[in-house]
Amino acid sequence: MHMPDIHAARRARLQEQTAALGADAALITSLVNVRYLTGLASSNAALLLPAAGADGARAGADGDAVLATDSRYAPAAERDCPDLELVIDRFAEPALAALAAARGLAVLGFEEHEMTVERHQALAGRSLTLVPLGRLVEGLRMVKDAGEIALLARACQITSESFEAAVGCIRPGVTERELATALEREMIDRGAEGLAFETIVASGPNGDTPHHAPAGRSFEPGDLITIDCGARYAGYHADMTRTVAIGEPAAWQREIYDLVAAAQRAGLAAVIVGAEVAAVDAASRDLISAAGHGAHFGHGVGHGVGLEIHEAPMIGYGRTGRLAAGVPVTVEPGIYLPGAGGVRIEDTLVVRAGTGAIPGELLTTVTRELLVL
Amino acid sequence: MHMPDIHAARRARLQEQTAALGADAALITSLVNVRYLTGLASSNAALLLPAAGADGARAGADGDAVLATDSRYAPAAERDCPDLELVIDRFAEPALAALAAARGLAVLGFEEHEMTVERHQALAGRSLTLVPLGRLVEGLRMVKDAGEIALLARACQITSESFEAAVGCIRPGVTERELATALEREMIDRGAEGLAFETIVASGPNGDTPHHAPAGRSFEPGDLITIDCGARYAGYHADMTRTVAIGEPAAWQREIYDLVAAAQRAGLAAVIVGAEVAAVDAASRDLISAAGHGAHFGHGVGHGVGLEIHEAPMIGYGRTGRLAAGVPVTVEPGIYLPGAGGVRIEDTLVVRAGTGAIPGELLTTVTRELLVL
Repeated sequence: MHMPDIHAARRARLQEQTAALGADAALITSLVNVRYLTGLASSNAALLLPAAGADGARAGADGDAVLATDSRYAPAAERDCPDLELVIDRFAEPALAALAAARGLAVLGFEEHEMTVERHQALAGRSLTLVPLGRLVEGLRMVKDAGEIALLARACQITSESFEAAVGCIRPGVTERELATALEREMIDRGAEGLAFETIVASGPNGDTPHHAPAGRSFEPGDLITIDCGARYAGYHADMTRTVAIGEPAAWQREIYDLVAAAQRAGLAAVIVGAEVAAVDAASRDLISAAGHGAHFGHGVGHGVGLEIHEAPMIGYGRTGRLAAGVPVTVEPGIYLPGAGGVRIEDTLVVRAGTGAIPGELLTTVTRELLVL
Repeated sequence: MHMPDIHAARRARLQEQTAALGADAALITSLVNVRYLTGLASSNAALLLPAAGADGARAGADGDAVLATDSRYAPAAERDCPDLELVIDRFAEPALAALAAARGLAVLGFEEHEMTVERHQALAGRSLTLVPLGRLVEGLRMVKDAGEIALLARACQITSESFEAAVGCIRPGVTERELATALEREMIDRGAEGLAFETIVASGPNGDTPHHAPAGRSFEPGDLITIDCGARYAGYHADMTRTVAIGEPAAWQREIYDLVAAAQRAGLAAVIVGAEVAAVDAASRDLISAAGHGAHFGHGVGHGVGLEIHEAPMIGYGRTGRLAAGVPVTVEPGIYLPGAGGVRIEDTLVVRAGTGAIPGELLTTVTRELLVL
């Protein structure tokens, strides 16, 4: 399907949901949601989408959707969004609110998880009734189509190949920052449009910090090194973590590595169509807790990935919801021992109705055996 | 001054301002503001800061400031924020709200330009009175201290040197993306911790889009190429743009280049202590408008830079406020001709009480003469 048609089909689903809420139109202000619904990647944009059946909205069509952005993005919007009415205005959101009021779209659904209190007050000053839309677009974004998964798979392939190329530079004396730089260059050279997030390289005792920023520490024999990295490709975010050892690991290092690896396998195995996200979290976490390391694993087991590095569904203790086919998620348990070091292993995979030890479709492919360098 | 003392001094100023608002405490939820006030760079953090003189706040001290973040950042917080009470909780903001209520800090100033409607409603469900703080911290952040300017200057130096190194690879057949990659590698190799923003390379007709993302277009003789780039160093963001030509430029290209260069000189000259930001915008814009290109210059003349790539003060038509010594800003007029191409020239400089054609302190140093390659 032609990209503008894909975007139109996404909008049509949202128009139905907006009508079901009783709103006259949706005002989409999350930039990544605007991108998902229009194809326009902009740092200043908003979309006004009349509900299905609203005055002026053609049934089953969205000829009346209005995209607002500023002049910097006007050429891109004109080129990529040929079937949308465009408003070029530096103040995209107020411009669309004024347009909604002028067109009699008086009940406006808004994204309360994105809109600030300040902007909400500015809109509420107009003769509009604002009703929360909830995370409708994030809900639509969870299940990816084949085109999206192909882009995510490419991002993951770039990430895997870059990791395998960069890992060769690990030796005593190399710094965390040097390894991160080497890895980032590999990803850019392989066609990444950018990084999915800031690369994490945490070596030796720094491994006790799950999100340690790579710094000047030089690798030493006996280190575990946790490397969390991802390429971004056409807007889609890869996410992968491996932990490697310099020299033969000590018994305690091998023990926590084997434990995290087992917990990760259990988490990967639990990623099946219809699984409760809390069950996926528990499948992985319970192994770590049973071994006495529950207090050393303070984050969720995983999360959705796509146009954002962290998106629905979140896979964690106390989270609700079920996995559906076509949803890409990560599985990334870890153990972090204060002052000593840590291990995390993470893959990106797509929920599929498959069989075997990993029913899902793995997109990151680097070995999960402990690499001893 | 020791970094924790610098952060404490910043907090003391905010505590006075919070007291002046009549609030019992400030709840800081903008992550970059939390970083400014504590030194902690975290993707999940909040700060509860009792007002000066509030119950439990020691006069002139902030022993009762409470920093909340999740377990991923606990080691960094313990190391870098030794004088702060720490709360390690995945739900940092609700944890601090509960603490405020428990400590009798009932009137809580919040950052209404950062807090979403959704989170505000969750907080309002507690027995707290929420009052808008406004952009108090952004106001404190405008004037940079010598340490901050040194970091920004380093970011700008890396940017300038990287541009000069990468410009040598420009020739017909090289793609926008290849140039962007080369430039980004130069910046990382020179010690940038990352990019200040996604590099813009807009060649030939793509130059009509001020924020064109570099793509597969190959450079051709006769192109103007606009390159907007910046390194990030220790959290500080450089911003510089140059437009170069491949082969002798056509008359229309030379004309708009000379016009933008003159407009940029006028803007740089207007950056003086006490200048109204609208006057700086006008100094640059009026030259472009007088030449009939007002409609081809749709963005503001500049903006503050620091811990964010765009921060106060914004320099644009209709903006208010005056420049003070020690405020780093950009000056970046442009002309964008639909379907034909464009020119933008941008520097980062610090407002100073200097003399000469550029009274401020230029931090980006690449020649502003048209480079013909």
